[in-house]
Amino acid sequence: MEKKLFDSTFRIAAKVVTICLISTNAFAQQALWNNTDIISPKINADKSVTFRIKAPKAIKIEVEGDFLPPQKIETPFGVMEGTGKSELKEAKDGVWEYTSSPLASELYNYSFIVDGQKMNDPNNVYLVRDVSTVTNYFLIPEGRADGYSVQNVPHGNLSKVWYASPTLGMKQRRMTIYTPAEYYNTNKKYPVLYLLHGAGGDENSWSELGRAAQILDNLIAQGKAKPMIVVMPNGNGSEEAAPGEAPNSMVKPTMMVPKMMDGSIEKAFPDVMKYVEKHYRTLSDKKGRAICGLSMGGFHSLYISALYPDKFDYVGLFSAAIHAQSKGENTDVYDNMDRKLATQFGKAPKLYWIGIGKTDFLYKDNTDFRKKLDEKHYPYTYMETDGGHIWRNWRIYLTEFAQKLF
Amino acid sequence: MEKKLFDSTFRIAAKVVTICLISTNAFAQQALWNNTDIISPKINADKSVTFRIKAPKAIKIEVEGDFLPPQKIETPFGVMEGTGKSELKEAKDGVWEYTSSPLASELYNYSFIVDGQKMNDPNNVYLVRDVSTVTNYFLIPEGRADGYSVQNVPHGNLSKVWYASPTLGMKQRRMTIYTPAEYYNTNKKYPVLYLLHGAGGDENSWSELGRAAQILDNLIAQGKAKPMIVVMPNGNGSEEAAPGEAPNSMVKPTMMVPKMMDGSIEKAFPDVMKYVEKHYRTLSDKKGRAICGLSMGGFHSLYISALYPDKFDYVGLFSAAIHAQSKGENTDVYDNMDRKLATQFGKAPKLYWIGIGKTDFLYKDNTDFRKKLDEKHYPYTYMETDGGHIWRNWRIYLTEFAQKLF
Repeated sequence: MEKKLFDSTFRIAAKVVTICLISTNAFAQQALWNNTDIISPKINADKSVTFRIKAPKAIKIEVEGDFLPPQKIETPFGVMEGTGKSELKEAKDGVWEYTSSPLASELYNYSFIVDGQKMNDPNNVYLVRDVSTVTNYFLIPEGRADGYSVQNVPHGNLSKVWYASPTLGMKQRRMTIYTPAEYYNTNKKYPVLYLLHGAGGDENSWSELGRAAQILDNLIAQGKAKPMIVVMPNGNGSEEAAPGEAPNSMVKPTMMVPKMMDGSIEKAFPDVMKYVEKHYRTLSDKKGRAICGLSMGGFHSLYISALYPDKFDYVGLFSAAIHAQSKGENTDVYDNMDRKLATQFGKAPKLYWIGIGKTDFLYKDNTDFRKKLDEKHYPYTYMETDGGHIWRNWRIYLTEFAQKLF
Repeated sequence: MEKKLFDSTFRIAAKVVTICLISTNAFAQQALWNNTDIISPKINADKSVTFRIKAPKAIKIEVEGDFLPPQKIETPFGVMEGTGKSELKEAKDGVWEYTSSPLASELYNYSFIVDGQKMNDPNNVYLVRDVSTVTNYFLIPEGRADGYSVQNVPHGNLSKVWYASPTLGMKQRRMTIYTPAEYYNTNKKYPVLYLLHGAGGDENSWSELGRAAQILDNLIAQGKAKPMIVVMPNGNGSEEAAPGEAPNSMVKPTMMVPKMMDGSIEKAFPDVMKYVEKHYRTLSDKKGRAICGLSMGGFHSLYISALYPDKFDYVGLFSAAIHAQSKGENTDVYDNMDRKLATQFGKAPKLYWIGIGKTDFLYKDNTDFRKKLDEKHYPYTYMETDGGHIWRNWRIYLTEFAQKLF
C-alpha cells in the first residue's frame, strides 16, 4: 500500500479512456465519455441565452419555450396563441445555435424540435416533469428568479415521509415536508403551511415545479417570511404516492385519476395533520395553520378550510378550480357551502387570499366567487397577475402568500 | 355556492380543451394537451419490451440500451464492444416500434437515436442522471429487479438534510438520509450504514441510480436486512451539494471536481457522523457503524475506515478505486497504509467486504489489494460478478452487503 501518490486527475482521465476501450458494456458508463464540451443553455452577461446542440445530420432545429413571445397558430377554431419558437442556425462542426434577446428574470422552460421531433436539450441535465411532459429549465438571475434559485442562505431540509391514512384505507401515503433551516437547532414549535398541488400533480410538484424549498429558504433568510414547516401532501385520493413511488405505479402520468375531487381528500385531511402534529414540533392551533393550493389544490383548500372552520387562520386559493367537484359518496363535503362559509368567516380567519391570472380559464369562476364574498362582506385579499393557469403564477402566489403568514 | 355537482372528469376534459384554445402562453400547460396515447416502454407478459415513438418525419430510429447485447464497433484501437442498438420499424400513423426479446429481471437504461440524434423517450417520464447524461429506465419484474422496485412493503423516509462541515470550511453541506419504515414508530436506536458515491456522483446518486431506499425497504421487509439508517453524503470536498442544489451550481456536471481524493473527505468525515449521531437515534459505537461505497466511494471507505479504526465494524469496497489519491495538504491520510491496515485488522472488524466485476478496469488493482490482504492473513469476503464498472453491479453489491450488516 505504500504506493507513490498519483495525480488523480491525470489518472482518472486515463481510466476514462480505458473504460471506453475495454468495458464489456459501456452504456452505464456513457456519462463518462459521451460528454461533449457544448454548454447549453448559456446565460450571457446581458441576460440573453444561447442554446446549442450538436446535430450534424439535422435539417431544421427550433427551440420552443415560454421565454419567447407566444406565436400565432392557425387552428380549426381560428388563430390562437401557441408557445413561441425560434430557429437555431447551423454554426460549425454540426453545432446549431440560437441566442435569445435579453430576458427578464424568471424560471423558463424549453425544448428543442429537431426535424419535427421534440426533445430535451442533451447538454442540460436540469429537467422537470409536469404531468407526463418533461422539459428543460433555466433561471435568469437578478430579479424574480433569485427567489427561486438556491442562494447562499441557510437551507431547510426536505423529506419524503410516509404517513397512514385510515380514512382513505391506506397504510402509507407519501408527502413532502420542508422544515426551516433553524428547525433542528432549536426546540421551538413552528407554524405549518399545507401546500396543495393541482390535477396531474402529486407530492413532488411544489418542491420541483414550484421551487417551494428555495422560495421559503430565501424569504425566511430575508426576514420576509416567518420560519415555518411546509407540508406538501398527495392530493389524489386513489394514490399512495407520485407515479413511480408506489407499487405498480411506473406508468405514464395522467391528468385525471380517481378520487381527486369527490370529497375523499377533504375528509382524509385530518390524517395528514395528525401525522405532522405528532412527528414535528408544530403550533397546533388555528393561528399556527395555513392552507393553500393551486387549481385543484385551491379547490381543496377552499373546501377543507370550510369543512374544518376552526383549523386554519390562513387560506390561499391560487387559480382555484372553484367548482370542480365530482359525484360520490363523500361529496356532502361540497354541500351547504353558503352556511359553511358563513361559519368560517364568522370565525374571522386572519387571511383569505385569492390569486388568479387575467387569462386563466378559471378567471370567471373566481370572479363569481369573489362577488359572492363581496355580497356577504367576507374580507379577502386579491391578487391578479398576467398570464393564465401556469406555474409562473403559482410561484408568484406562493411568494406573496408566504409573506403574509403567521 | 349551492351549485349542482358536475361530473369532474367531463368538466376538466372540457377545460383542458379550453386551455389549448385560450391560454396566452400555453407552454406551461402543454403537459395537459401535448399528451399522446402512446405507451412506451410497454413491458409485455413474456417480459419482452415494446418501444414506441411517434416520428412521422424520421428516416431511421434506433433504440440503444444495456438490455441489448453489446455491439462490436470499429475504433482506431481495434474492434471494441459498444452499447447494443436495434432499429425500430415504422408502423402506422408515423409511430415507430421495436419489441425486444424476453429480458431477464433487471433495471435497464436506454435512449432513442432519431436520425442520428440521441434523445430520451418522450413517452417515458422515468429518467435518471449519471454525471451529465440523462437516460430513460425501466424495470423487468419477477427476479432481481423486484429488489429495486417499490413493493407493497413499509417504506422508509428519505430526507435531504444540511449539516455543517467545519473541517471543509462549509456552513452547510447536503446529504441524503434514509430512515427505516419503523423508525418513527419506535424509540429504539439504529445502526448506521454510510453509503458513498463515486466520481461524478453526489448525495443523490445512491437513492436515484442506486435505488438504495427500495433495496433497503425490500430487504428489511423480508427480514433479510436489519432495520438501519442509511447516510448518503456528498463525497466531493469542494461541493456543498449536488449540481443545481448549491448556489451558482446549475452547471453541466463533470466527472472531476476539486477535493475528491486529496484527503479532505476522509478528514471531514467525523463532521458527517457528528450530525447523524446528534440528530438521529443511532447506535454510536463500532458495531453499529458500517461504511461502503462504489469506485471513489470504495476508495473513501477504505481510507476512512483505516483512518478511524475504532469506528466501523463493517467495511464494503464496491469496485473500489484503490489507488486514486491525488496530491495535497491532507494526503497524509493515504500514508503508512500498511501500518494503518495492521491496526485496523488488529481490531478485528466483523466484515471486510470486496466486490468487483470481472471486466472492471479496476479489477487488477483490487486483485493486488486482495493479495496484500491474503499475505497478511487479513480476513475479507469477496464477490466477483460479470460486467464492469457499472450501476448494475453496485446495486447487486449493496443488496449483498446490506444483508451481512449488524
